[in-house]
Amino acid sequence: MNPLQLERSSKQPLTEQLAGQLSERITQGLLAPGSRLLSVRECARRHGISPSTVVAAYDQLLARGLVEARKQRGFFVRPPGPRRAAPQLAPLSPAVQPLDATALIRSMFEHGGRPAPGLGTLPATWLDGVMLQSALRKALNSSSADSVVDYGDPLGDAGLREALSQRLAELGIVAAPKQILTTVGATQALDLVTRALLRPGDAVLVDDPGWAVEYARLSQAGMQLLPVPRGAQGPDLAVMEQLIAQHRPRLYATVSVLHNPTGSSISLSQAHQLLKLAEAADLMIVEDDTYAAFAPPHLPRLAALDGLQRTIYISGFSKMLSPGWRVGFLAAPPQWQERLVDMKLLSTLTTPAWLERAVAHCLRQGLLRRHAERVLAQLEAARERTVKLALAHGVRFVTPPAGLFGWVDVGVDSERLGQRLREEGWLCAPGSLFSPQREAGSLMRINFASSQDAAFWKALVRCRETLLRSGSVAARLSGC
Amino acid sequence: MNPLQLERSSKQPLTEQLAGQLSERITQGLLAPGSRLLSVRECARRHGISPSTVVAAYDQLLARGLVEARKQRGFFVRPPGPRRAAPQLAPLSPAVQPLDATALIRSMFEHGGRPAPGLGTLPATWLDGVMLQSALRKALNSSSADSVVDYGDPLGDAGLREALSQRLAELGIVAAPKQILTTVGATQALDLVTRALLRPGDAVLVDDPGWAVEYARLSQAGMQLLPVPRGAQGPDLAVMEQLIAQHRPRLYATVSVLHNPTGSSISLSQAHQLLKLAEAADLMIVEDDTYAAFAPPHLPRLAALDGLQRTIYISGFSKMLSPGWRVGFLAAPPQWQERLVDMKLLSTLTTPAWLERAVAHCLRQGLLRRHAERVLAQLEAARERTVKLALAHGVRFVTPPAGLFGWVDVGVDSERLGQRLREEGWLCAPGSLFSPQREAGSLMRINFASSQDAAFWKALVRCRETLLRSGSVAARLSGC
Repeated sequence: MNPLQLERSSKQPLTEQLAGQLSERITQGLLAPGSRLLSVRECARRHGISPSTVVAAYDQLLARGLVEARKQRGFFVRPPGPRRAAPQLAPLSPAVQPLDATALIRSMFEHGGRPAPGLGTLPATWLDGVMLQSALRKALNSSSADSVVDYGDPLGDAGLREALSQRLAELGIVAAPKQILTTVGATQALDLVTRALLRPGDAVLVDDPGWAVEYARLSQAGMQLLPVPRGAQGPDLAVMEQLIAQHRPRLYATVSVLHNPTGSSISLSQAHQLLKLAEAADLMIVEDDTYAAFAPPHLPRLAALDGLQRTIYISGFSKMLSPGWRVGFLAAPPQWQERLVDMKLLSTLTTPAWLERAVAHCLRQGLLRRHAERVLAQLEAARERTVKLALAHGVRFVTPPAGLFGWVDVGVDSERLGQRLREEGWLCAPGSLFSPQREAGSLMRINFASSQDAAFWKALVRCRETLLRSGSVAARLSGC
Repeated sequence: MNPLQLERSSKQPLTEQLAGQLSERITQGLLAPGSRLLSVRECARRHGISPSTVVAAYDQLLARGLVEARKQRGFFVRPPGPRRAAPQLAPLSPAVQPLDATALIRSMFEHGGRPAPGLGTLPATWLDGVMLQSALRKALNSSSADSVVDYGDPLGDAGLREALSQRLAELGIVAAPKQILTTVGATQALDLVTRALLRPGDAVLVDDPGWAVEYARLSQAGMQLLPVPRGAQGPDLAVMEQLIAQHRPRLYATVSVLHNPTGSSISLSQAHQLLKLAEAADLMIVEDDTYAAFAPPHLPRLAALDGLQRTIYISGFSKMLSPGWRVGFLAAPPQWQERLVDMKLLSTLTTPAWLERAVAHCLRQGLLRRHAERVLAQLEAARERTVKLALAHGVRFVTPPAGLFGWVDVGVDSERLGQRLREEGWLCAPGSLFSPQREAGSLMRINFASSQDAAFWKALVRCRETLLRSGSVAARLSGC
């Protein structure tokens, strides 16, 4: 491992440098859980700094929950865990480093079949397995045996890209098929953008609140996160302007329509202002339109306004069609396309063409459209019912209910509430999951499709009352 | 973009620092093709260095083919291209930075259906599209509609992992299904290992010669490549020991069996010595067994000797079954598994379970085994025929012919020979593709399955003679 690099000439105090570099190694797994830090004396000697500097740095690691002190034995790296650093994590303001967010995704998979108000997808029963199987059969029967044995086009199946080009045109986004690159879900598209456009150490603007997995991806790649408060109309442009001036970020990663978790969509005027700001600052934008299928087509996309000049548009079919097919895509300005294809080649070579042909079939035959219409009607009814239940149980909506998710204020610490509800079998998504700093608060994301059970709301009220009765002042929190 | 960081206190001269940092930005695409470098005067002023230092650094970039000088206008970044930096590239010894290797993969896809002695795969006609389609139908029919609509297990399809665990046992590799992680081809497995185990700036030992795409992946991720000469028995352990002492690499990435491009396999005693060296140096090994299906099972795998302690084993089904399905996997020591799963979640979330079920079907029903037997018999005949043709046309084998690839000496600069042959419709794989420094030489990789046409060998002799007649001394090269 490279030695630590402490610079006396730096503006950052030595304590901060030492704590920062050690915590980076721990969170990146370069210092394994259970390994012992150098003794204070030895660390001071090696780096030619005073023991008190070392003590102060180790104290910071202790406070962040990254190490533990064992009597007479020294400091040891703590094993990672979802609760390790949550409450104690001091934000490395303004660029924050969220830890272990992949633990959150894992819990999503470990959840199994229980009712899950915290889930990020439609319940499996809402999807149309029979339609999907039939589409797969069609794709299989229409493929020659020859086409099963080649690598496919690095850009992705030509038929799907053609169909996507047409679909994007309906959203006002002009993208030729050759500007479109298929990916292993929208996830790979976001990953390719990070790797093609950014270098470790680059600053990236992100929505706050936003999706923890995106924070984790960027942090893992060594980026500095610059959280931009997200309101009902879009990002706080005044804050963004300030962050741009201070940190010269290269990219803004955002869910502009049906934002996760708030469900809000950027207004036309905000979108226009944002693009002017981006142009002045030479800022790239990645627009994650994962929830495209849930949104009315008239909502403005940044990629449409911008003419795909400095915006990379990303979407996929995991939410509405099938999460397991992992078919996503991006549409990029021509000058970035080659680099993005290169990154795809280096990371997965190509993508399975045959699943892409099945998606193309669903698009071309109008199967996706009809399926989406049925789902949206069902979702509207679910939303109505869930909103009534929420309000009846003293839970208010922070942003107007729309799309798949509701962003609600539960009136107590939502992380603690979520833990109690989980013990009763209800998986929840507390607001801290959506905070770059993992800040506690009273907010929570609910999935309208899977929160219609009155029993959940009764359990929520019961757990909330237990928390309030436990007398802890910390349980009472105003919305963050 | 962050400013350049020149350090007077560094041992590296300022010229080298400036040239190195600029070339890094250019190769990473951060300085776009066509953009103008600062004028010498302005660059000197900004960094407080002398103009002569800047001139010397710009000259280096010019020599490497990264920039071009335009009269009266200054220095401009050159557009990337496969031939940009090949002959002029000065190796940044001993850590080398190969450029634009993805151009090589692209050419593979652009090649189309012409005969291709340079191809890295079996010809599509050798694969069994009918068997594959039938396996897909079986997987489809045996899947419930429900299973089509979930995300699947982050580790990959349980049935496939079970079948892989049994298959690995036949190679002497003990890996429980939970130690196995499925990936989007072996490519993603290699990518996940890079991202989970390494940090930018880390030194990595690689085989020399070796596969350009692996060099490109590591370089793109910011690693320093340390080439280890690869002989017929395995890596040169004396060189490796020296590189370990000097650079403390974290990882050795190798194809131990049926190495690409030489076709050689590590001997048992070399494998043992290598593992002892790795243990002493706390070095991880990633063993890329992409050609597993072509190798006799008795050949020693590092992962078998090592008991999967410090070796991560990678393989896939693109070479023998279907490149387009993109089904690969890795088997890792337990302590690395969680981190690798995290990286998979961040990069593609899951992998398409249904294609994995089709592969599992091929494994369980013995379809893959029977198909491989047929292919290997066919390949043996092809190898015999190709070797005869090669020898009859004055081409000698540098390593004993084995597996899919032959490593031959063509007696002239193989890159120039390859260009001429390409003009005649024969895609070749000259030795420079497999050199970390992109060094020219007289070596070339041929694919036994697709070099059986006597017309190719006649063309090779004709082109070689033209090159020799052209009188260029440079055309005559001894093997590198």
